[in-house]
Amino acid sequence: MRREQVFWGWGEPGAGPSLAPHAVAFLSAELGLSGEVVSRPVALEAVRLREPALDDAVRERLAAIVGREFVRSDREARVLRCRGKSYLDLLRQRAGACEDAPDAVVAPASHDEVSAVLLACAETEVAVVPFGGGTSVVGGLEPLRGRFSALVSLDLARMDRVLDVDARSLTATLAPGLRLPEADHALAARELTLGHVPQSYEWATVGGCVATRSSGQASTGRGRIDGNVVGVRVATPAGELAARTVPASAAGPDLRQLVAGSEGVLGVITAVSLRVHPAPAATHYEAWTVAGFEAGCDVLRELEQAGAAPVVARLSDEDETRTTLALAAPGRLARAAIRARAGAGGCLLICGWEDAPRRAEGVRRLRRSGARSLGQGPGRAWLASRFAGPHLRDDLLDRGVMVETLETAAPWSRLRAVREAVRAALPGIRVGCHVSHLYPTGASLYFTVLARRDDADPAGQWLAAKAAATDALLAAGGTLTHHHAVGRDHAPWMEAEVGHLGLDLLRSAKERCDPAGIMNPGKLV
Amino acid sequence: MRREQVFWGWGEPGAGPSLAPHAVAFLSAELGLSGEVVSRPVALEAVRLREPALDDAVRERLAAIVGREFVRSDREARVLRCRGKSYLDLLRQRAGACEDAPDAVVAPASHDEVSAVLLACAETEVAVVPFGGGTSVVGGLEPLRGRFSALVSLDLARMDRVLDVDARSLTATLAPGLRLPEADHALAARELTLGHVPQSYEWATVGGCVATRSSGQASTGRGRIDGNVVGVRVATPAGELAARTVPASAAGPDLRQLVAGSEGVLGVITAVSLRVHPAPAATHYEAWTVAGFEAGCDVLRELEQAGAAPVVARLSDEDETRTTLALAAPGRLARAAIRARAGAGGCLLICGWEDAPRRAEGVRRLRRSGARSLGQGPGRAWLASRFAGPHLRDDLLDRGVMVETLETAAPWSRLRAVREAVRAALPGIRVGCHVSHLYPTGASLYFTVLARRDDADPAGQWLAAKAAATDALLAAGGTLTHHHAVGRDHAPWMEAEVGHLGLDLLRSAKERCDPAGIMNPGKLV
Repeated sequence: MRREQVFWGWGEPGAGPSLAPHAVAFLSAELGLSGEVVSRPVALEAVRLREPALDDAVRERLAAIVGREFVRSDREARVLRCRGKSYLDLLRQRAGACEDAPDAVVAPASHDEVSAVLLACAETEVAVVPFGGGTSVVGGLEPLRGRFSALVSLDLARMDRVLDVDARSLTATLAPGLRLPEADHALAARELTLGHVPQSYEWATVGGCVATRSSGQASTGRGRIDGNVVGVRVATPAGELAARTVPASAAGPDLRQLVAGSEGVLGVITAVSLRVHPAPAATHYEAWTVAGFEAGCDVLRELEQAGAAPVVARLSDEDETRTTLALAAPGRLARAAIRARAGAGGCLLICGWEDAPRRAEGVRRLRRSGARSLGQGPGRAWLASRFAGPHLRDDLLDRGVMVETLETAAPWSRLRAVREAVRAALPGIRVGCHVSHLYPTGASLYFTVLARRDDADPAGQWLAAKAAATDALLAAGGTLTHHHAVGRDHAPWMEAEVGHLGLDLLRSAKERCDPAGIMNPGKLV
Repeated sequence: MRREQVFWGWGEPGAGPSLAPHAVAFLSAELGLSGEVVSRPVALEAVRLREPALDDAVRERLAAIVGREFVRSDREARVLRCRGKSYLDLLRQRAGACEDAPDAVVAPASHDEVSAVLLACAETEVAVVPFGGGTSVVGGLEPLRGRFSALVSLDLARMDRVLDVDARSLTATLAPGLRLPEADHALAARELTLGHVPQSYEWATVGGCVATRSSGQASTGRGRIDGNVVGVRVATPAGELAARTVPASAAGPDLRQLVAGSEGVLGVITAVSLRVHPAPAATHYEAWTVAGFEAGCDVLRELEQAGAAPVVARLSDEDETRTTLALAAPGRLARAAIRARAGAGGCLLICGWEDAPRRAEGVRRLRRSGARSLGQGPGRAWLASRFAGPHLRDDLLDRGVMVETLETAAPWSRLRAVREAVRAALPGIRVGCHVSHLYPTGASLYFTVLARRDDADPAGQWLAAKAAATDALLAAGGTLTHHHAVGRDHAPWMEAEVGHLGLDLLRSAKERCDPAGIMNPGKLV
């Protein structure tokens, strides 16, 4: 059985980094909290579950397809497949509120088994929530039954193979349940890398990334996952949907881009052919300080539009820079902090390079813009801690903090307006922001929000903030989401994003692939 | 009124290059023809037309929307909007077979006028064929009435403005009827370029390129048009479909990529926001000779995968190289021809660069591969003649030649098999091939076919060859089309390309946008 995360937070029990005492002290002071632990997740045994609602006949039918041991209804399986990892998810998981947990967790081992499971569920009116890495932060895994009396989690853990590597064509065909580190490990033997590194890297799966149009920390250099899809195979209740593996085509609308971002509402991705990349010979991570956020955006725009951008580029605004430096481990980054603070305005910029000539050109432009080097120390420190955020969140939840992220992308000309609109929509909340992905036409903005949790109605507190921020960023010209997909949480804004007819076209596609409506009800459309 | 092409061939009357005597002699010898002119297009007055079938009431309604002078049913308007520019199209246009010509040519001036025209046509059951540059080579403009008794050509010539330039975000919002040279001319004032250069550049329109997923001669460097779409607005019979202008999004499937390639069957693109590019400071076109086609593919793959490819890369196979050199004007290219022939195998490679450091790296790799420089002469000669092909085709048609092109793309690992399959499928036909667009995962192959025309059944002769080549390239792992879109001619193979469910999804989208089925009947789906 493969490794699992804890049901109430991030990662394996006890495996992640914890908040250092100085970090607790800083955040407590910022948010007016004591710094004491004020809540803990319930124990697994205390989680509230209902009896599984799956008919025996349906269970037998599913067992006949995938094998009896792969239709699980034990407490652990159901609680672990109950939700994703958003702040709202964790509030309820920590409280043990799993009354709606899937009635069973079904784990097929092949495309044909997935097809058969979907057919069985369509015929018996059982809702299906596909489950990859379980890292959704937009309610993509919420077990919404809709009009159905039973719901199963379709766990892709057993479909975790590298199906084919065409090194000549820099293309790997991967099974959907393969986790990203395992994909990279397998490809490393061929001196290749998928190189797709979201913050959820340790747990996210290939199929989940494609289904949610994931972007990663290196997407500035390597592109988003959707831009790297060259072929795909999907099992739907209405049959197979496949796009041939070719570099490009003019044969009508691109169905690959209908599958990417489909979030399990059309069907289940059972194989995907992705562009892979030569493993870099060397990497160079470093930090810079720029005079301010606007100046930093200007130089990043220049780098990107000149083809001189780093593979990883992250520019923190003034507030995020201050928090980052305050939370950083003493040592290298702290020394850098001093230098950053000594700079004029002091926004922190992390750059990761994989190509020396490109770096030379980028550095020349950075210096010319007035950016000042902080050296490799803080760059390496960022690299070492780049998956720490979700671990530290668990500590913050223990201490009564509301902590969440939201994100968007906008044209360069709208970036300032979008950032200001989001900040203005969140009065009384600490908002840090960074630019995390560069495109010739614009960039993404990633916000981290922190506040003292209102334990009378913690979900309501966040939902109000989220709604205000989302309305604001859409009105200012941003997109509903650049990183995190739609799920349940963003679904109310989809019409604002794609229009009435656009949303209707997505619904038409769903009706054609999934006439019974069993696939991930209540998400996306 | 803006410039128009001749109804029977390419370009303006008398404006294009003609076949030189030595080229006529070479091709005649190759194909066993006399070289004499054996057929000529009919005069406009001799073209066969039916009386326009449009009801007076409908005509009045359309005139009330767009203005009386923009609903034309004169001979010239109808014949000029009857078809595109494929070999099959020209056979019939030259013969004056325009019995099915549109009953009227309607030219709206705005999104709202397009919407109103589509609504009127849907209500009165009139088929609509959107018309941009008129350069389709896949039957995309064929006036197929389907179940409708009347058909109008919806001419986008009046919607030819630059709507917005966001230079900071390298994004231009363009009206659909703007021709590519005019787009580049307008952008040049801002030191920008669209830089999308299909062979049809002189006539093709922005909207037509997006609707057909066009690629251009510089697409290796600048990307295909579909990859440069950042926002779009479409008028459909069911209302407006719009995608906001953002650099990237994770908000579900990408509707931009449903519009790109939709070929007028969903609606009419009324505005498109495209990534534009800084105008290059300098360009460097040059030619090389490589030892053979396989060796040339290997070095192009290396250049592309190392990020060192030129903006324009065209590698001719042995047969195309021989033809190119034989047809070339005496002088520089002829001297180069001698040197190329003196080389080992002698395949001609044209490279266009816009960046000196990249060229330095590319040249280093080319030399290491054994490629030999032919200097800038033949590169400039290619540049000067790169739009000549369709003009020369008219001369070939006069002389009894069957001349057409077909194209595909495939992974690098399948490229050889695809080329061999196409050649094997065309016995008795002269087939030249070049690689014209590079991707990290593969490349496109473009074939030019020449044979003595069978004047007993010229269309049947070509259709048989086309069917055999298409079956072969699909079986070998290529895509149905990389450059030219689907139109009527490729539609029978769409199920082979996208599968049964894939095709059904496109039909569902059409039904939702165009319930009456008036939009470009018989094309794509």
